[in-house]
Amino acid sequence: MKLCKTINEIRQAVKTARSNGQTIGFVPTMGALHVGHETLIKQAAGQCGFVVVSIFVNPTQFEPGSDYNAYPRTLDADMELCKRAGASAVFAPSASEMYPQEVITWVNVERLTDGLCGQYRPGHFKGVTTVCDKLFNIVLPDKAYFGQKDAQQLAVIKRMVADLNMPLEIIGCTTVREESGLAMSSRNKYLTDAEKKEAALIYASLQLCEVLFEAGETDTKTLIAEMRKLLANGSNIKVQYIEIVDTQNLQPLDKIAGSALVVIAAHLGKARLIDNITI
Amino acid sequence: MKLCKTINEIRQAVKTARSNGQTIGFVPTMGALHVGHETLIKQAAGQCGFVVVSIFVNPTQFEPGSDYNAYPRTLDADMELCKRAGASAVFAPSASEMYPQEVITWVNVERLTDGLCGQYRPGHFKGVTTVCDKLFNIVLPDKAYFGQKDAQQLAVIKRMVADLNMPLEIIGCTTVREESGLAMSSRNKYLTDAEKKEAALIYASLQLCEVLFEAGETDTKTLIAEMRKLLANGSNIKVQYIEIVDTQNLQPLDKIAGSALVVIAAHLGKARLIDNITI
Repeated sequence: MKLCKTINEIRQAVKTARSNGQTIGFVPTMGALHVGHETLIKQAAGQCGFVVVSIFVNPTQFEPGSDYNAYPRTLDADMELCKRAGASAVFAPSASEMYPQEVITWVNVERLTDGLCGQYRPGHFKGVTTVCDKLFNIVLPDKAYFGQKDAQQLAVIKRMVADLNMPLEIIGCTTVREESGLAMSSRNKYLTDAEKKEAALIYASLQLCEVLFEAGETDTKTLIAEMRKLLANGSNIKVQYIEIVDTQNLQPLDKIAGSALVVIAAHLGKARLIDNITI
Repeated sequence: MKLCKTINEIRQAVKTARSNGQTIGFVPTMGALHVGHETLIKQAAGQCGFVVVSIFVNPTQFEPGSDYNAYPRTLDADMELCKRAGASAVFAPSASEMYPQEVITWVNVERLTDGLCGQYRPGHFKGVTTVCDKLFNIVLPDKAYFGQKDAQQLAVIKRMVADLNMPLEIIGCTTVREESGLAMSSRNKYLTDAEKKEAALIYASLQLCEVLFEAGETDTKTLIAEMRKLLANGSNIKVQYIEIVDTQNLQPLDKIAGSALVVIAAHLGKARLIDNITI
């Protein structure tokens, strides 16, 4: 497995692979890799002959005052995981390699980014879409793999790719969970053991929502109220939002007809955690 | 020469050319082709084995109330010109092929688009950069050719390509002029013969600026005042702006040290004309 620090190096590696007839898979990450990422990489390796994992803590997607500096950076362990999972190359550029001059070009997906996390993280999705556009232009993958855990991000990236006719396929992958049900996240590293136990209530509340829905409850206000009641058992959980939205346009629903996306964001200790299920 | 109306068709044509080892050149246009475009296409054909010309009157770059409906559409004549100039394929999609759903993703280059034409055509450059991004993703060219006549557009596109790491080279081509000096433009079709004669004063004013600069005048206020005096001889010319700006960041200069871009926009009859020179 190759480690590329510059844009030229990774372009050259991809070019060689493509000239050998290999399909290019791409898993963009911010490092601090966990079993969730490993699953993405394995899925990519199963479908593509050459898999690139990018590891880049992208400054432009952290809103002011958030955890850019504190974000865990664990390149050596990440490299081990990538190798084990079947990656062909890791692209780990510096910030100055990615942003040699002031950023004045932005790719922005409107509306889909207004609600949910977008309203609490101003500028976040603009940073995500712009860096993904850059990474796609550098790696030129056939398929790129994103976790379902970041449901809004996945919807936004899919829409960007469609609207801008980007020549690649976006593949959303099932959220990987700890035994407790807690969704795998690099930010789980911020949690104490006690907080980790409480964090399991987040997925439990999503499961409760599904059970009530399956039993016939379609009123979203009622469902959300029941979820909040359950979460109140976690004395340190501060719910930021719980919403039940359309799976395509992410607009809030009053009643569920067909399917819906149930999304939750909560602060717990030093971490901001998000999770979701489609019901 | 092939005419492709759909994204799939042009992608297939380009794919075949690339698998034959050909370099892909691209000339994006809005049709109503003239000798200026012909020169771009010929230059592309001289440097690339496979040249795609796109003909698409892009609705999103026309500000409300401007000439989208009136813009000349002359596909048959355009096809003749493309063939003659050495194009390999014409990509002429419908608006619904390019925009099958509401556009909510925009590529925007900030600051460079604030001044000059940007301040008089709100949303124009955002429409241009977004459609160029789409076209680049569809055609996947190695080189794309733009006229120097649209100097701000050229600077904006170059910056977008650099900021987003797009894998292509942008080539700016010298403005082609009529014998009178009038820059070739599809919008010249809006001019009466009498107006065309007056329009020659626009380039004359740019030449005057260059002569005065070569003679030692570096104060931009003085230079612009002299240009305005000359243009006052055209009783139907309504100057929108004359500016002397930095060639890279397009910021207005007080004094010229080294080189500068002299830019002018003026209304004449039904046309809005722009022109520029680098001195």
